[in-house]
Amino acid sequence: MELPVFYAPDIQQDAVTYTMNEDTSKYCIQVLRHEKGDQVLLADGRGSKYTVVITDDNRKKCQVQVQVREMLPPPVPALRIAIAFTKNAGRIEWFLEKATEIGIQTIIPLVTARTEKEKIKAERLNSILVSAMLQSKQFWLPVLEEPQSFDKVVKGNVDPQRFIAHCLPEQKTELQDAMMAGKDTIILIGPEGDFTPEEVQQALAAGFQPVSLGRTRLRTETAGMVAAVLMNAKLPS
Amino acid sequence: MELPVFYAPDIQQDAVTYTMNEDTSKYCIQVLRHEKGDQVLLADGRGSKYTVVITDDNRKKCQVQVQVREMLPPPVPALRIAIAFTKNAGRIEWFLEKATEIGIQTIIPLVTARTEKEKIKAERLNSILVSAMLQSKQFWLPVLEEPQSFDKVVKGNVDPQRFIAHCLPEQKTELQDAMMAGKDTIILIGPEGDFTPEEVQQALAAGFQPVSLGRTRLRTETAGMVAAVLMNAKLPS
Repeated sequence: MELPVFYAPDIQQDAVTYTMNEDTSKYCIQVLRHEKGDQVLLADGRGSKYTVVITDDNRKKCQVQVQVREMLPPPVPALRIAIAFTKNAGRIEWFLEKATEIGIQTIIPLVTARTEKEKIKAERLNSILVSAMLQSKQFWLPVLEEPQSFDKVVKGNVDPQRFIAHCLPEQKTELQDAMMAGKDTIILIGPEGDFTPEEVQQALAAGFQPVSLGRTRLRTETAGMVAAVLMNAKLPS
Repeated sequence: MELPVFYAPDIQQDAVTYTMNEDTSKYCIQVLRHEKGDQVLLADGRGSKYTVVITDDNRKKCQVQVQVREMLPPPVPALRIAIAFTKNAGRIEWFLEKATEIGIQTIIPLVTARTEKEKIKAERLNSILVSAMLQSKQFWLPVLEEPQSFDKVVKGNVDPQRFIAHCLPEQKTELQDAMMAGKDTIILIGPEGDFTPEEVQQALAAGFQPVSLGRTRLRTETAGMVAAVLMNAKLPS
């Protein structure tokens, strides 16, 4: 049977024993009913996978002994999505959960001319990333960066593959056709009102390729999720 | 500027005038502040696109006059997703919204050995499909079928391309590699506990191809959404 994964952000790489925090202990012992002697997995979110056995099934500070530690390589190539956060928090939280499940490594809240939301609740959003990482049995936690201006992202990003998905009636290639496998990639996803023509021009001038995400009109969070799926589908299996 | 689309399920194809129902009238006149003389679009959900002008901006029974009616061809090929509904209603409602935005034509609630939810709230779910259709500027409403048994779907479906996405450690092809463009397609998405080995065998025996939706572990609704994106990406642009 497959072992459940718990989050241990503060575990030392050479740890022999570890004590889960109160929330994790409660979830492991009280909710999932694990007991002393049970084997479970710990993820530090930085690629380390610990196989441990429960030595004290205390529901407030569950202690474990480390049996095996594996270091999983970081996902390559890096897939980054810079997306204008929606006013509706639930929609962007949903996007963060799905992008994590699918396997995106970096999410950048993008502040554009028409972005409706520029502040983020980093702690709450990170807890969503952690849950999705554990639920999808991954060991690398996606990075949620601080909100960045469109200008900064367009000028500062150096990924070899850079895309901008916009709805202006201009020549575009479908993302799945434009994207080449194996290269670090970033895609820019605009707000509900789309990027301004000036922003699109600025991105194209900076070497971003204009792409389409299909023939239907997508909400911002749906566009981000579609981009995540199409980029991930280009990874070598 | 782009015209807003309103739902007119009961409009006659040869209608010269039409009266919106109370909800739609309120939304059009009171919420969106449209007035007499404004031009808007109506969708009947069966491919007809009506360009109309408001002749009476009554907030309870808004009347319009039809100027143009276009018949949009049904989306081809047909893309069908048979998916085990989750216990959590919100997750499957979210899937229905996204599958509609992306452009799936038929959704079949799949009753499997491990399906946690076999009854559906058809009316509520259909209203979600309608909202997503209008929001994504489409004129064909996806069909949400009655829940069907795994056995019935596997034996009864005659689509030329049939896939089953499962998590058993067996030989599988990535959906985007297995799928050929231009063919009517159905994919089966299992419950949180996955299909049983017997169900997988039954599907393979019936000619379904086993496919993978990526390297990460996906929730049921995420798997359905990923399948929707990958199938849609295979459509001729």
